[in-house]
Amino acid sequence: MTLDIWFTEKHKDQQGISVKVKNVLYSGQSDFQKIDVIDTEAFGKVLLLDELFMTTEKDEFFYHEMISHIPLLAHRCPERVLVIGGGDGGTIREVLNHPSVKEVVLCEIDKAVIDVSIKYFPSIACRLDDPRVKINIEDAVEYIKKQKNSFDVVLIDSTDPLGPGVGLFTEDFYTNVKNSLKEGGVMAAQTESPIACQKEFQLINALLNKVFSVVKPYFAPVPTYPGAYWSWTFCSMGVLPEINNENLAIELEKTAIYYNREIHKAVFAIPNYVKRLIENKDTVIPGCN
Amino acid sequence: MTLDIWFTEKHKDQQGISVKVKNVLYSGQSDFQKIDVIDTEAFGKVLLLDELFMTTEKDEFFYHEMISHIPLLAHRCPERVLVIGGGDGGTIREVLNHPSVKEVVLCEIDKAVIDVSIKYFPSIACRLDDPRVKINIEDAVEYIKKQKNSFDVVLIDSTDPLGPGVGLFTEDFYTNVKNSLKEGGVMAAQTESPIACQKEFQLINALLNKVFSVVKPYFAPVPTYPGAYWSWTFCSMGVLPEINNENLAIELEKTAIYYNREIHKAVFAIPNYVKRLIENKDTVIPGCN
Repeated sequence: MTLDIWFTEKHKDQQGISVKVKNVLYSGQSDFQKIDVIDTEAFGKVLLLDELFMTTEKDEFFYHEMISHIPLLAHRCPERVLVIGGGDGGTIREVLNHPSVKEVVLCEIDKAVIDVSIKYFPSIACRLDDPRVKINIEDAVEYIKKQKNSFDVVLIDSTDPLGPGVGLFTEDFYTNVKNSLKEGGVMAAQTESPIACQKEFQLINALLNKVFSVVKPYFAPVPTYPGAYWSWTFCSMGVLPEINNENLAIELEKTAIYYNREIHKAVFAIPNYVKRLIENKDTVIPGCN
Repeated sequence: MTLDIWFTEKHKDQQGISVKVKNVLYSGQSDFQKIDVIDTEAFGKVLLLDELFMTTEKDEFFYHEMISHIPLLAHRCPERVLVIGGGDGGTIREVLNHPSVKEVVLCEIDKAVIDVSIKYFPSIACRLDDPRVKINIEDAVEYIKKQKNSFDVVLIDSTDPLGPGVGLFTEDFYTNVKNSLKEGGVMAAQTESPIACQKEFQLINALLNKVFSVVKPYFAPVPTYPGAYWSWTFCSMGVLPEINNENLAIELEKTAIYYNREIHKAVFAIPNYVKRLIENKDTVIPGCN
């Protein structure tokens, strides 16, 4: 009989997601954050950064399909892609399912995340050694300042707006991302939970609206993130988040776990209370109408 | 400094949802189940049945809007409605926002759930005293056998397929529900999580397909349920789950927290892996394509 050991990510010290732990496979401290890998029955192996769920073997597909397929299918022909953060390699893996892509730059501040992912998460990090992938270990806040008119698609696959990720949620940073895009370029960012992180979602949305002319949040489940319902936001200076390459979408549907063309449209439906959040009117008010 | 006390609902002893507990307001044992009410910062007051989250003040709107507005708006003119389970009153509250409704029968096996809800959840149980509501304390398995050609809409707002709710997930029961419907009638049932309860979802879907000719699952978040992403299924003998009363949908949008017309369409998009579950092909397969 093994010990009944559980890990709980406590969100704002009020609510949490708990998993029964079979084994702790790795615990370390990088220059930027605490990194742990635990093995669980519920989600397979789990990557924790600063004791927050980052990715799990069993539910990672929701996040990685959403952050990649939606913007890449909206672009007329994505050739050069930048992934900011994303050291686990899951976003890279999905980006490389788009055959027009000739180069993907991974700009990750923390090499240790990449190393741990390659060692413990082969199903996620499996394409980091693809010849089209250029790994750049650098703070994206500095890297992006130097990129002008350079990428077709930028994906901000960051941690939360605290710790090493905090500089990735500013108007300056988003402006630099915009300037790094070629004409017709698009970007998508993870933009926190519209349930558990309403204030953060609201703030990020307001910042993005200052910088981009098309700002379209979209929503899908991520069972191991706070609120378990997550948002990403598609941004551009004119391109809409519609499927531009129908044939490729059909092809991706054959192997995708979450994504299909119906889902592509459906994820852009905005719940009523989220519309009010975006309009800065209020937050969730429960109770009898 | 108050004690740091947490409650965790452990799902299949593998994963859980945790909340910090401010206070335990009620604990009792009815003839059917253990009933507890706790007060939390994250979700306000929480109703637990057999130590499982049933409803919370702050997130109940997802569930109650979804189980009621989708089927009632699809019906051409719902006048007589049956709610099975639903002793907390949230479904009744939403049903009564449909002005064509002349009578709602609440068939709840456990009067204690109603009593506790009236006392502790006034924002949810607030319309149980409406003159259109008829409360019938009875096992719905027996009640439904006696109803023929009687209801425009039946809503199965049950607990999970264990404990007192187990008889509400059988082919016989669904057949009796079908027979209780008037011509043009529709039903919707809560049908478990397509993430945390995949086998149950698959089984229920197969049973419903044996009985009804239109079987359309739909999906939305419920942060305090296992997997935090839930399903309901719309069933009929021909009526589709489309908005039949556009004016009423516009009216409901003004006060709904989650529901709007875009959401009504979007919730029917079926994730790829759920399509495979429905076709009995497989369950989620993570990893590198």
